[in-house]
Amino acid sequence: MLTVKLPDGTEKQFEPTATAYDVAADIGPGLAKSAVAAVVDGEQQDLKAPLGGIAANCAGEAASDEASVELRLLTKRDPEALAIMRHSCAHVMAQAVMRLFDGVSLAFGPVTGNGFYYDFNLDHALSEEDFAAIEAEMKKIVKADEPFERLSLSRDEAIATCKEMNQGFKVEHIETGLAEEQTLSFYRQGEFLDLCRGKHIPSTGHIGKAFKLLSVAGAYWKGDNSREQLQRVYATAFFDKKELKAHLTQLEEAKKRDHRVLGKQLELFTISQTVGSGLILWLPKGAAIRQTLEDYLKDELRQRDYDAVYTPNIGKVELYQISGHYPYYKESQFAPIEMHQQGEEGDKYLLKPMNCPHHIMIYKSKPRSYRDLPVRLAEFGTVYRYEQSGELSGMTRVRGFTQDDAHIFCTDEQVAEEFRGCLEMTQKVLNSLGMTNYRVRLGFRDPDSKKYVGSEEVWDRAEAALKEVCESMDLPDMAIEPGEAAFYGPKADFVVTDCIGREWQLGTVQLDYNLPSTERFGLEYTGADNQPHQPVMIHRAPLGSMERFIGVLIEHFAGAFPLWLAPEQLRVLTVSEKSEEYGKQVQQQMKEAGFRVTGDYRGQKLGAKIREGQIDLIPYMLVVGEKDAENGTVTVRDRIEGDLGAMPVAEAIAKLQAEVADKTVRQVAEAAPAAPVEQGDGY
Amino acid sequence: MLTVKLPDGTEKQFEPTATAYDVAADIGPGLAKSAVAAVVDGEQQDLKAPLGGIAANCAGEAASDEASVELRLLTKRDPEALAIMRHSCAHVMAQAVMRLFDGVSLAFGPVTGNGFYYDFNLDHALSEEDFAAIEAEMKKIVKADEPFERLSLSRDEAIATCKEMNQGFKVEHIETGLAEEQTLSFYRQGEFLDLCRGKHIPSTGHIGKAFKLLSVAGAYWKGDNSREQLQRVYATAFFDKKELKAHLTQLEEAKKRDHRVLGKQLELFTISQTVGSGLILWLPKGAAIRQTLEDYLKDELRQRDYDAVYTPNIGKVELYQISGHYPYYKESQFAPIEMHQQGEEGDKYLLKPMNCPHHIMIYKSKPRSYRDLPVRLAEFGTVYRYEQSGELSGMTRVRGFTQDDAHIFCTDEQVAEEFRGCLEMTQKVLNSLGMTNYRVRLGFRDPDSKKYVGSEEVWDRAEAALKEVCESMDLPDMAIEPGEAAFYGPKADFVVTDCIGREWQLGTVQLDYNLPSTERFGLEYTGADNQPHQPVMIHRAPLGSMERFIGVLIEHFAGAFPLWLAPEQLRVLTVSEKSEEYGKQVQQQMKEAGFRVTGDYRGQKLGAKIREGQIDLIPYMLVVGEKDAENGTVTVRDRIEGDLGAMPVAEAIAKLQAEVADKTVRQVAEAAPAAPVEQGDGY
Repeated sequence: MLTVKLPDGTEKQFEPTATAYDVAADIGPGLAKSAVAAVVDGEQQDLKAPLGGIAANCAGEAASDEASVELRLLTKRDPEALAIMRHSCAHVMAQAVMRLFDGVSLAFGPVTGNGFYYDFNLDHALSEEDFAAIEAEMKKIVKADEPFERLSLSRDEAIATCKEMNQGFKVEHIETGLAEEQTLSFYRQGEFLDLCRGKHIPSTGHIGKAFKLLSVAGAYWKGDNSREQLQRVYATAFFDKKELKAHLTQLEEAKKRDHRVLGKQLELFTISQTVGSGLILWLPKGAAIRQTLEDYLKDELRQRDYDAVYTPNIGKVELYQISGHYPYYKESQFAPIEMHQQGEEGDKYLLKPMNCPHHIMIYKSKPRSYRDLPVRLAEFGTVYRYEQSGELSGMTRVRGFTQDDAHIFCTDEQVAEEFRGCLEMTQKVLNSLGMTNYRVRLGFRDPDSKKYVGSEEVWDRAEAALKEVCESMDLPDMAIEPGEAAFYGPKADFVVTDCIGREWQLGTVQLDYNLPSTERFGLEYTGADNQPHQPVMIHRAPLGSMERFIGVLIEHFAGAFPLWLAPEQLRVLTVSEKSEEYGKQVQQQMKEAGFRVTGDYRGQKLGAKIREGQIDLIPYMLVVGEKDAENGTVTVRDRIEGDLGAMPVAEAIAKLQAEVADKTVRQVAEAAPAAPVEQGDGY
Repeated sequence: MLTVKLPDGTEKQFEPTATAYDVAADIGPGLAKSAVAAVVDGEQQDLKAPLGGIAANCAGEAASDEASVELRLLTKRDPEALAIMRHSCAHVMAQAVMRLFDGVSLAFGPVTGNGFYYDFNLDHALSEEDFAAIEAEMKKIVKADEPFERLSLSRDEAIATCKEMNQGFKVEHIETGLAEEQTLSFYRQGEFLDLCRGKHIPSTGHIGKAFKLLSVAGAYWKGDNSREQLQRVYATAFFDKKELKAHLTQLEEAKKRDHRVLGKQLELFTISQTVGSGLILWLPKGAAIRQTLEDYLKDELRQRDYDAVYTPNIGKVELYQISGHYPYYKESQFAPIEMHQQGEEGDKYLLKPMNCPHHIMIYKSKPRSYRDLPVRLAEFGTVYRYEQSGELSGMTRVRGFTQDDAHIFCTDEQVAEEFRGCLEMTQKVLNSLGMTNYRVRLGFRDPDSKKYVGSEEVWDRAEAALKEVCESMDLPDMAIEPGEAAFYGPKADFVVTDCIGREWQLGTVQLDYNLPSTERFGLEYTGADNQPHQPVMIHRAPLGSMERFIGVLIEHFAGAFPLWLAPEQLRVLTVSEKSEEYGKQVQQQMKEAGFRVTGDYRGQKLGAKIREGQIDLIPYMLVVGEKDAENGTVTVRDRIEGDLGAMPVAEAIAKLQAEVADKTVRQVAEAAPAAPVEQGDGY
């Protein structure tokens, strides 16, 4: 008999041939109906796989009377169930495509953060016009409630089967990608059979009706652009129609907020193919936002006793050989600049992919004592990485970006306080920007791995200190993630949920025991004991990069920036041409009061001018007429609340200056539920 | 007979064989004695050349009775005479070296801004230890008062003569460098004969005693490092011993102020060979100066309605092919970054050598109307140029530098006002920095040359407008220099005299008719006539580059920056350890008041701490003792004036904030006489 341990602690005895479904049925018919998969001894499994076989596999021996398994049943309410169902839905989509079109070769069909896709090779060029037919065919398959059946085949059988089905990509994948595997698993539903690790839901009926095809795009077999170009069909599925609807609304909303569209419309940035893909040209309005944000950060850095430095955008290849970034990250870097001029033959330079080696050279420029520590070097450092052109996207995936970077060199004892300072600054900055919905992921080491640099004692101490700091702080949502540390040290990432519910990994704080080590730069300070010691290095960037952060910010605010950040904060509008002189006078007063202000003195109707101002997302319009000129007033028009009435110019200045000083954020909508994380620029 | 016209308008008749010396003797024996050369019809000539021959050469015909010349005699008082004497002194130095050492091959021996040098090839390694002997030998030659005698030889005779003297470099130079010349001139004094265009002083005795050898350095024949390495002996000479002494004092003073030495001592910047030569790492204190200066400039730009932009540090080679900077300036640029990755094969990028093409792409990013003009795009843009390693020097000759750059796109009619704005901003900024001693060089076109882009009418109008603007302004010293315009437009350069009398070319304003043209970027705006027009482009940088300017500033202030720029503005000193708490409280108050402030709370004697503060060039030290703690006061110690007595903290803050707000400059010494210009970074 097999002992099955359930999450609530109860244990039950079953025959070794029993399945998770049998256990569910034993508990109750409702559970049996709603269960879609299981987690057995920590691994996802098909609901109808014999538990005894799994237990035996896990133990590496035949099932015996003493065997036991831990079982957790997954229902629609479990987040893991959604990915399993989506994967099954991808199989159903492939089945539908094969029913509708001839000569379909299947490539891969994985689950993504928000849905799934399947890559096909077929003569017919798929388009959105085909989606209705494919969805209709999928509905039929769902309605037929075909069971998903798992088959194990030997290598030879597997290859023969795929050849018989004319699935050349699958044959190639078995022969090259799965060369080590002796047995290969397939899944069948109805007439459809696919090489697949699984796992799957019990039958197509569990998919329900909440699925939708979204788009079709080109993709290369195994991402290699020298190979076949495939047609990738993106789709999504939910257990619940309401969730699908919310997701589609979010996609619509995201489309409206697309920073690439808004960036063009609001003239924030541009990209020129003559300059190069992924290289941002900040237009005056985008640059005004960036400069305002940088000035704010510089002020924070000053308060927190950071020292600004400036370093060049290039360094000799040698520098990156010491740091280890070259040649290991060569593929994601711009090629070296190779000088062949007289007298300098052989010198090679790299566009810097990060600022740390330069800051390290500053640390090393003089002997350091424990009294000098912590040394905090900050720079808005522009770095260059060579993203593949297919991965570029507006400002959020670029080839050149400016990190709001700093490196702290400190003693072991100072790590906790410095780490706290970094977290506090990140918190403060995010809060000032109305990004109050975030969580902190604390990446610790995998206790079973040996890949980490630095002694176990140092890591234990650091992780304990970091945990204590995080727990003592007012962090809304903090989770320790073992195995998520970099090989060089533990880290904390800020994952921000924007106002339409998407998650973005932005700020980061990372400890580094690698670069200061003798194998790398051999950093030192003289301790109170007069002996040399190795400092700890902390990499930190509250925003990550100016490009990516402002890209996210554009989407977060849907282009409607709060007063303190808005590129055009105020616009003076004249009721008629008679007030032009007074309008210009008000504009000059506002400029002298520190505002970014323009004037619209055209002879058009006021209503039209106001509508234009609303479209241009100007936080405040200042309407002036003849009466205002007499009284020295302006009529303030708030973009959100509309007309606030007339007030003396000095009063308007005071009111608006206070709003700037407070960095008030007024226009952000409530956040929707979180979508999976978009990764940041970190190395 | 020959008519000789003198500068005072008088005319005299002479035989055609008469020389300028004869004319001088005719005027008076004093003048005959003091004259060293002449300017005949605008060209320098030897004092003893027959005037008739010169007149004939100039007129291209035999001397006739109607011939006349304009003659100006040069005496020691004329600035041109100094260069002629120095060149003669170079010949004397070469003669002395050849007397003292065997196997001397002569290369070139020109005059420089501050003196002269001669390049020799000889086995003996020259050093400063040889200088006394060479100077002694030169004194003998001067005392012998050997006349300088001019010889004209045919090509064959010239080559034979040089071969006979074993002067291989001269032979090569006649054969390759002077291949067009049919007659070649030589000058002889005593046993020394040298291929030379001249001109020279009448005899070695005119050199006098005020000369000095300064240093010896390596140099390549014709600057080509694949050729022979020569020994270059630098020296200088004056007509007056006092002037030599003043110059040597200036050299000493310059040595003390050397920004490379002060930069290290005051921890302003460093250069690391691992990062690369000519690439500045700004240390925290240097970065504080730069950031303060940039913030000041940003504020000025805002007042003057410039728009800040940010652009990447690289661009595709194509961009520079359009601009014409590639391949024409290839030799002074870093090599291209050549991508060979999948899908991007063939893309080449350049580190940008200037910001204009990027700003042009921003101008081109949308259609422009005359109503949008002027468009003023400003950026602290970091650019890279590949100076030869021998030319690098601290921060003033570098391979990477940040220009305080802007480009103005305007109509023809707006040129004058925009030009005025640029000059005014440069003036204001230089004055704020205590650099009140400068002159403006207005570079106009050479009326005889056809190299210029743009029609004659446009140039005439532009030059007239620029001249009018300059004349209407309060410019201390302005000179029009025909032929000094760039091929693309007229320009104004600010040449600043620093406080030890050296001149530096810093700010520049340049009109550009080339880059906007259809042959280049084809810029347009729609005029009031609804037709497309070509805008004028203005390049301008009030400081030039942050690196070079701050390098000059360090030397100008000898490291003692005025309060508003000083990296460490204030230092709190405690009288004893009892006041540490109060001292820290004062330090915090000062930080909150916006100052860069440190504290010295060590248990050392106050006198020692003050001495250290003076060495560190801290503008103000704030001394606090127990009484200050009781009274809430600080004793302010001015670096220049010493103890200012005790005052309440609030009063000290107000006093010092006022000094910062006024940008008061108090410590600059009087400027010495001007030395020749050090060229800037302009293209």
